[in-house]
Amino acid sequence: MKALLTTGEGPFGLSHEEVPDPVAGPGEALVRVRAVSVNRGELALAAVSPAGTRLGWDVAGTVVEAAADGSGPAPGTRVVGLADGAGWSERVALPVSRLAEIPAGVTDEQAAALPVAALTAWYGLRKAGPLLGRTVLVTGAGGGVGRIAVQLAAAAGARVVAWTGSPERGQGLAELGAEVVSTYEEAAGGGSDVLFDSVGGEVLTRAFVTLRRGGVAVVYGNTTRSELVLPPDWGRARPGVSLHNVFLFDEIERQDPGADLGALLGLCAAGRLDPQVAVTAPWDDPAEALKRLEGRSVNGKVVLRLP
Amino acid sequence: MKALLTTGEGPFGLSHEEVPDPVAGPGEALVRVRAVSVNRGELALAAVSPAGTRLGWDVAGTVVEAAADGSGPAPGTRVVGLADGAGWSERVALPVSRLAEIPAGVTDEQAAALPVAALTAWYGLRKAGPLLGRTVLVTGAGGGVGRIAVQLAAAAGARVVAWTGSPERGQGLAELGAEVVSTYEEAAGGGSDVLFDSVGGEVLTRAFVTLRRGGVAVVYGNTTRSELVLPPDWGRARPGVSLHNVFLFDEIERQDPGADLGALLGLCAAGRLDPQVAVTAPWDDPAEALKRLEGRSVNGKVVLRLP
Repeated sequence: MKALLTTGEGPFGLSHEEVPDPVAGPGEALVRVRAVSVNRGELALAAVSPAGTRLGWDVAGTVVEAAADGSGPAPGTRVVGLADGAGWSERVALPVSRLAEIPAGVTDEQAAALPVAALTAWYGLRKAGPLLGRTVLVTGAGGGVGRIAVQLAAAAGARVVAWTGSPERGQGLAELGAEVVSTYEEAAGGGSDVLFDSVGGEVLTRAFVTLRRGGVAVVYGNTTRSELVLPPDWGRARPGVSLHNVFLFDEIERQDPGADLGALLGLCAAGRLDPQVAVTAPWDDPAEALKRLEGRSVNGKVVLRLP
Repeated sequence: MKALLTTGEGPFGLSHEEVPDPVAGPGEALVRVRAVSVNRGELALAAVSPAGTRLGWDVAGTVVEAAADGSGPAPGTRVVGLADGAGWSERVALPVSRLAEIPAGVTDEQAAALPVAALTAWYGLRKAGPLLGRTVLVTGAGGGVGRIAVQLAAAAGARVVAWTGSPERGQGLAELGAEVVSTYEEAAGGGSDVLFDSVGGEVLTRAFVTLRRGGVAVVYGNTTRSELVLPPDWGRARPGVSLHNVFLFDEIERQDPGADLGALLGLCAAGRLDPQVAVTAPWDDPAEALKRLEGRSVNGKVVLRLP
């Protein structure tokens, strides 16, 4: 079968190569892949990986071989799943615990946009507890994870404040449920109870100090690769405040990602969550889409469609 | 009755003045105070408060008037309690929810050392969950809160690493259960799962990076009044790590401080917790003891005895 392999020529250097067919292990189903999505973390990996590295976390397709123990979806079922990192392939073997059936009304492309982005937002926001009536500040709100976090927080009953790097990045966020849409410079929205960030640096500092007593900051990345700097009164001025790192591939070891993907797909089918597929490209010509993702000119997710 | 009032002349400026007798409100017992302890936070307040300010959180004594609704301890019961800030007085009215009976074998002086210091360590360490078999790093381990935290963590089954500003400050910590006793410069002890800090600044940074995957940092003060600075990989290098502020007078609004004080007294009576009363002074001549506390030359708690 074919898979996308790095060429060693930077984050967009990918080529289609013949690789061995996957073999399903115990508790694994074999999936014929129809769509994959691309995360910025994968571009970062592609940039530093040697030629011939396989990548890919988010896959959607059709089960061609059920797990040998009879668990999980039957052949022919449309599924989405979270792979460990070689999902950009025509076929992939996945543990059934990381698979969910795609309901009617949700496309393969939409489903493929979910695993990394939506589970990161899902587990991250859950660290903050119940959100009903609380103010949730989402930074980096214009990207794939951010747009999903805005929707999940709003659906959970929060007042959502969305910060982005530019007004262009904020387009559509009000329609997704953000009551306030602001840039990092304006930093509008007032006090908050929950902060969801992956920007780091000055943006994180500025966002953190909006937290009130008992506030919860959840950080799932540090795209600026900055030190974390908080003012001396970071705790004293907001007693009980906490700061949490969330890293998806650590989190899923304690969670049930298949069931959680199922819950997210249920929200999609009910019209309460839009995966925000902003760009769809054929998987044999992904470079242009990847460059736009890297340049933060994609307001949402990039999905590659397999033939 | 007499009370200790600030004179406005710095942290040690206190004088005995006549003040009105307290009147017990609903659910409050009236306590004849026998011993109070002094916390560094009170010295900081004394330094900035106008003349005539009353202070005092930690009180131990004897109930002279039970709560009118019949709840709480009967007259004659030895009790310890947490006052809102005017406890350095001959009598004090305290909510029964903030009182605990002192068991036989525990002196008034020992009991008076507990409320602020031991409840801070108690609630702080509880934020980290079960400690059995985990490594707990306590900074500022030579002081009143630190010495109690070392004992509570060891009693909960943790391997305890204690850091202090000097070898002198570390005296006795091994006997209290610390497996490693080190200075901030040496920073010995290896990786940790839990960090309990009130030093802030470089010490906090150095301690934080010893945390492993899923580690929990609990910060209950910032005596250096420094910015919090963590390296760019603070989260990425230790997935799931979290940082929590704990402030006692915020925490008790969600807790049951009387019951928790009772649990701490039970540990004292069982010989599992020593309140570490290092200096006892008469309350009409506290200045020398307070100066030693301010200068960090007291390895434990300062208690003032009333006549």
